[in-house]
Amino acid sequence: MRTTENAIIRAEQVIARCKKLATFSEDKGSTRRTFLSVPMHACHEEIAKWLGALGAYVTVDAAGNLHGFYAAEQSAAPRVLLGSHLDTVPNSGAYDGVLGVTLAVALLEALEGRRLPFAIEVVGFSEEEGVRFGIPFIGSRALVGRIDEEFLNHVDRDEISLRAAILSFGQDPAELPRAILPADTLAFLEFHIEQGPVLESLGLPLGAVESIAAQTRMEFVFLGRTNHAGTTPMHLRRDALAGAAEWIAAVERTAQNHPGLLATVGQIATKPSAINVIAGEARVSLDVRHSSDEACVRAAELLGQQAQEIARRRGLALRQSVLLNQRAVAMDRFLIEQIEHAIRKTGCQPHRMMSGAGHDAMILAEKVPAGMIFLRSPGGISHDPAESVLVEDVAKALQCGSHLLEQLANTRDLQKRMCRA
Amino acid sequence: MRTTENAIIRAEQVIARCKKLATFSEDKGSTRRTFLSVPMHACHEEIAKWLGALGAYVTVDAAGNLHGFYAAEQSAAPRVLLGSHLDTVPNSGAYDGVLGVTLAVALLEALEGRRLPFAIEVVGFSEEEGVRFGIPFIGSRALVGRIDEEFLNHVDRDEISLRAAILSFGQDPAELPRAILPADTLAFLEFHIEQGPVLESLGLPLGAVESIAAQTRMEFVFLGRTNHAGTTPMHLRRDALAGAAEWIAAVERTAQNHPGLLATVGQIATKPSAINVIAGEARVSLDVRHSSDEACVRAAELLGQQAQEIARRRGLALRQSVLLNQRAVAMDRFLIEQIEHAIRKTGCQPHRMMSGAGHDAMILAEKVPAGMIFLRSPGGISHDPAESVLVEDVAKALQCGSHLLEQLANTRDLQKRMCRA
Repeated sequence: MRTTENAIIRAEQVIARCKKLATFSEDKGSTRRTFLSVPMHACHEEIAKWLGALGAYVTVDAAGNLHGFYAAEQSAAPRVLLGSHLDTVPNSGAYDGVLGVTLAVALLEALEGRRLPFAIEVVGFSEEEGVRFGIPFIGSRALVGRIDEEFLNHVDRDEISLRAAILSFGQDPAELPRAILPADTLAFLEFHIEQGPVLESLGLPLGAVESIAAQTRMEFVFLGRTNHAGTTPMHLRRDALAGAAEWIAAVERTAQNHPGLLATVGQIATKPSAINVIAGEARVSLDVRHSSDEACVRAAELLGQQAQEIARRRGLALRQSVLLNQRAVAMDRFLIEQIEHAIRKTGCQPHRMMSGAGHDAMILAEKVPAGMIFLRSPGGISHDPAESVLVEDVAKALQCGSHLLEQLANTRDLQKRMCRA
Repeated sequence: MRTTENAIIRAEQVIARCKKLATFSEDKGSTRRTFLSVPMHACHEEIAKWLGALGAYVTVDAAGNLHGFYAAEQSAAPRVLLGSHLDTVPNSGAYDGVLGVTLAVALLEALEGRRLPFAIEVVGFSEEEGVRFGIPFIGSRALVGRIDEEFLNHVDRDEISLRAAILSFGQDPAELPRAILPADTLAFLEFHIEQGPVLESLGLPLGAVESIAAQTRMEFVFLGRTNHAGTTPMHLRRDALAGAAEWIAAVERTAQNHPGLLATVGQIATKPSAINVIAGEARVSLDVRHSSDEACVRAAELLGQQAQEIARRRGLALRQSVLLNQRAVAMDRFLIEQIEHAIRKTGCQPHRMMSGAGHDAMILAEKVPAGMIFLRSPGGISHDPAESVLVEDVAKALQCGSHLLEQLANTRDLQKRMCRA
């Protein structure tokens, strides 16, 4: 990618392609392209056209992932994976996941026929969002060998099993082991929109993901006594919602006072939920994230203790349960440095950042060194038709990606330099 | 009611009758007897047997209210109304409303055939709870002439109009004007379980209701920005639920700091309501009650200002709307004094109290002096099969009622002594 002008033209094409792919949808008038859905075939055909023009060898694996293999200078060379996911949430924007695939294709195009010391495999994952089966990362799980017989028996809302869904997509579940990453895979690199406001608030187009956050999800149930709102004096109440409200305020305050901690209560439900009845039950969710596993677990414990203390003081009972405890996943240190270097070469200031959301790179990191580059999300908006990217940022991402590939091509003993964290 | 022993025997019968009436239900295994439902006929027949045995003249008016007229010493005498409501909520207890009717019958029985200077009309209102049409007090509204043509067109969940419901109950809506209170009505007296914990917490069996609270019902909608819980730093959030939670805590604190004020948030709903999404919208209810109209309105205003201040500070938008603004209704001052005097005569300490809940006496007070006596509610429990009364308290209520009727019978210029507050 020699000139900025060139990069802008390619960036405009990347954005146009994202918008084109957004038209392959299960819904009229909005984009929904869930795992193994019919429009995913059309999406694959479109991308295969672009990849085919580059001389890449295009296949679809048994988990429905699209692969485009762009050979190296020499036939026995290792490969670098470049991509993201192609599935979407309902009423989605055009860039979440898809941008990482169109950028990968554009990076091949920018090579203008040149071959590198490693092959480049563009990958478009079939499933990341967890919409259809309530389980995310099914596409990348297939590449690390994490889809077993039990997993194949999971059913979606229509009682269709994962096995049956794969068959009806025209693939064979027995072929799943062939989707596992080849031993010659050097690294996985993923471009993705940030889906948050951090880069925008810093005025930066690109960020280097340092780690994907540890995440704990819990449910708290405050239990008080249902009573008549008109006949029960304030001092004789055991109001479950008032207790939950005090705790929600404490959750926010605690997170504000602990740098790097994110804590969110997004769901709440009361019983009996009548305007003139004091709530006897308040059920609330908790989502805690931190770049450190230990800090995440400690924060969840602290918030649980605060809930207990509030419940005790108010004469409420409390039930708490852990729904998810996901460890933090570090990106490869060498790749982070290389990404920062490549960002600097584009004339931008690199920003190391945590990804609060989970990504395919987190799954691939189990097996190969992984690196992730975030693009600024205007307004922090994602999972919404208003999701967008700036053409200048996409151009910077393309330049960054080209620099990064050059850097890796020029690194001696590339495999040895990368360590899985 | 000469002896305590006698009163206990009558009280046991009152309780047995309440339990008997609870068996006339729309539901198997639990009590639900809504307005103009089929089991209301059986309920009327049962009470009519007891009233008929006393020589009372039993009728049902066009709104489905049961009346039992027990004549005075002289034929041209005025009348005192004594009663409560016969309809129930779903899965109700046996005493809410019904106890006021069975106590009225027992007070006639305790006269043992004696006649007073005024007639006594036992009344069992057909509707107080508002279950069927979403509008409460339909029975007592009929007695004050507040059921007009428009009202008759209201429909229940099955799209049956009030007019059609009256017809199918065997009554004629055209006869509604005949249900209006006769001009010779001196007063309305209502015994009712407290449905709250105040008398129990004071260790008292009976209370004299001073007023029925003013009530304001509102809805508040806090509007923030929906965002990803994992990608949005704490300081860049506009969390609608966190704002609502801060306000719910303020509502509770404000009510605790203002004696006599009750303020309750019983309902809350967030959007989009996902564990990993910051709420962009939180919709909360507010129920405010106070014995003073002015204090009730002022408190609702103050709580609205607090919501505005919280929303402003957090960068949230706020919508608020008033759903109900009901003025306080004072009970008749002379009757309150007479009730207190009668309670003292039973050997109990009288307690003047506010009724936070609405009652038929509130509607009747528009036209005639009204008085209300509360019986202690064990555990403050009502609208639940566990609702109960103590037999000793029912005996005290019977003694109190007998004293009260004697007192009124011995009051010169009774009508002049009572003023509608």
